[in-house]
Amino acid sequence: MARITTFSVDVHFGDCDPAGIVFFPNFSRWMDAASLSFFMQCGVQPWRVLEKTRGIVGTPLLEIHTRFIKSVTYGETIVIHTQVEEWRDKVFIQHHRVTRSDELICEGRETRVFVKRDAVDPDRLRAIAVPEDIRARCT
Amino acid sequence: MARITTFSVDVHFGDCDPAGIVFFPNFSRWMDAASLSFFMQCGVQPWRVLEKTRGIVGTPLLEIHTRFIKSVTYGETIVIHTQVEEWRDKVFIQHHRVTRSDELICEGRETRVFVKRDAVDPDRLRAIAVPEDIRARCT
Amino acid sequence: MARITTFSVDVHFGDCDPAGIVFFPNFSRWMDAASLSFFMQCGVQPWRVLEKTRGIVGTPLLEIHTRFIKSVTYGETIVIHTQVEEWRDKVFIQHHRVTRSDELICEGRETRVFVKRDAVDPDRLRAIAVPEDIRARCT
Amino acid sequence: MARITTFSVDVHFGDCDPAGIVFFPNFSRWMDAASLSFFMQCGVQPWRVLEKTRGIVGTPLLEIHTRFIKSVTYGETIVIHTQVEEWRDKVFIQHHRVTRSDELICEGRETRVFVKRDAVDPDRLRAIAVPEDIRARCT
Repeated sequence: MARITTFSVDVHFGDCDPAGIVFFPNFSRWMDAASLSFFMQCGVQPWRVLEKTRGIVGTPLLEIHTRFIKSVTYGETIVIHTQVEEWRDKVFIQHHRVTRSDELICEGRETRVFVKRDAVDPDRLRAIAVPEDIRARCT
Repeated sequence: MARITTFSVDVHFGDCDPAGIVFFPNFSRWMDAASLSFFMQCGVQPWRVLEKTRGIVGTPLLEIHTRFIKSVTYGETIVIHTQVEEWRDKVFIQHHRVTRSDELICEGRETRVFVKRDAVDPDRLRAIAVPEDIRARCT
Repeated sequence: MARITTFSVDVHFGDCDPAGIVFFPNFSRWMDAASLSFFMQCGVQPWRVLEKTRGIVGTPLLEIHTRFIKSVTYGETIVIHTQVEEWRDKVFIQHHRVTRSDELICEGRETRVFVKRDAVDPDRLRAIAVPEDIRARCT
Repeated sequence: MARITTFSVDVHFGDCDPAGIVFFPNFSRWMDAASLSFFMQCGVQPWRVLEKTRGIVGTPLLEIHTRFIKSVTYGETIVIHTQVEEWRDKVFIQHHRVTRSDELICEGRETRVFVKRDAVDPDRLRAIAVPEDIRARCT
């Protein structure tokens, strides 16, 4: 069974819009934080360390798909349950379930890829194969 | 053919992350702005006006699906091309193509619904049928 | 002595800019969350409840003044120590000290005012005297 | 007389909070964009270019001081009028006046410093003297 980590978010006033509910791009922001937290809870170092030791800059997104089921407002706490659903050669699918107590709030799938900077043009980010040791730590 | 509006975004330093590229939730933020801009360019009033005259609070998301093709950095300008791809009874699908000159940067589909506040519990938002007059203006 | 509450923030990748450090408006965002957290830790209800029971919409800012001493990056945790430094008739000064372990990271003063919606034009927010009972709870 | 540039902002739904007005840290975000826009309108290249050619990473903040006079909501456009009020040896004071038509919305002063990465520890940012050529372009 895949490893699942949890990541807790206290929702703040400034996260909400004039309708009084969370402005939805914040869910993507929190899922991104949950994604890195997943790796760090599995013992992987933050990207700023990996960039120096191994050239890995991060895991940018190729695709996201999110379903919003219930709205949330400030003063509430939500929990994000994160796992890697599928490891392929070059990409992996991360899945996030966001809950408030027992209720499902929203659910997202992210397709991500590990990248390094190009040797010649460091502004270019190049996809690399999923590092075996990182995958091993996270399963 | 469906009506298409455009919405221009100048990318700023603070929109970018430590990898030097746009932090992806900002694309959702800009698509949301392009979504409202679509309606306003079609002659629909902003939600804060419609809330008073007709009780319509906005068009929250049920689902988003975004593909990221190329990265963008600050000092660059992107354009979002927005249309309603499909009108159903209660929901509509809005499609956004994000370009930088001739390049496709990313592409997103949003499933949205018009909502009013519940008469008894104003904290509850209730989906309504797509208003005919708004649909007529936007086609 | 004034009551001091603490509010903890885990800094995320997306909070940082291309220089690799926290994009400074996020400190204002976190101080705002620490401000409301101060009131809630003192037993005051969130604004969305007070709006219904007493018409109080929140405590918008009249002025902010922030000094940045050290930079912070993602993967680090900071703590915000919040107090009301001064209560006047209509405004109050909230002070935030942001620390990382023993280091002072930044420091901010906010001048805030309690507001209600205008009875005739609800889009207008009107300053009210600092509510005595709220002040009493927070001292 | 100091050179003044302008920078226009269309306020979006997601920039506003449950009180229906701009969440104030967004003003800092827009002033930061206006700050860089000031330099670029004066003919200075964006930091990501200067980082490569001259090692200059940006102009982080030492201090901000902002007064909020009127609130703004979405669907409105504001203009930021930016100038450098004072050049000192190592720091400069940038001043932003934010207006909506003829009304003053808010006003901010930023103390900023040019920085390079430390030669030994690139994670450290070091203040440098204000570059003469940049100052000359901006006056």
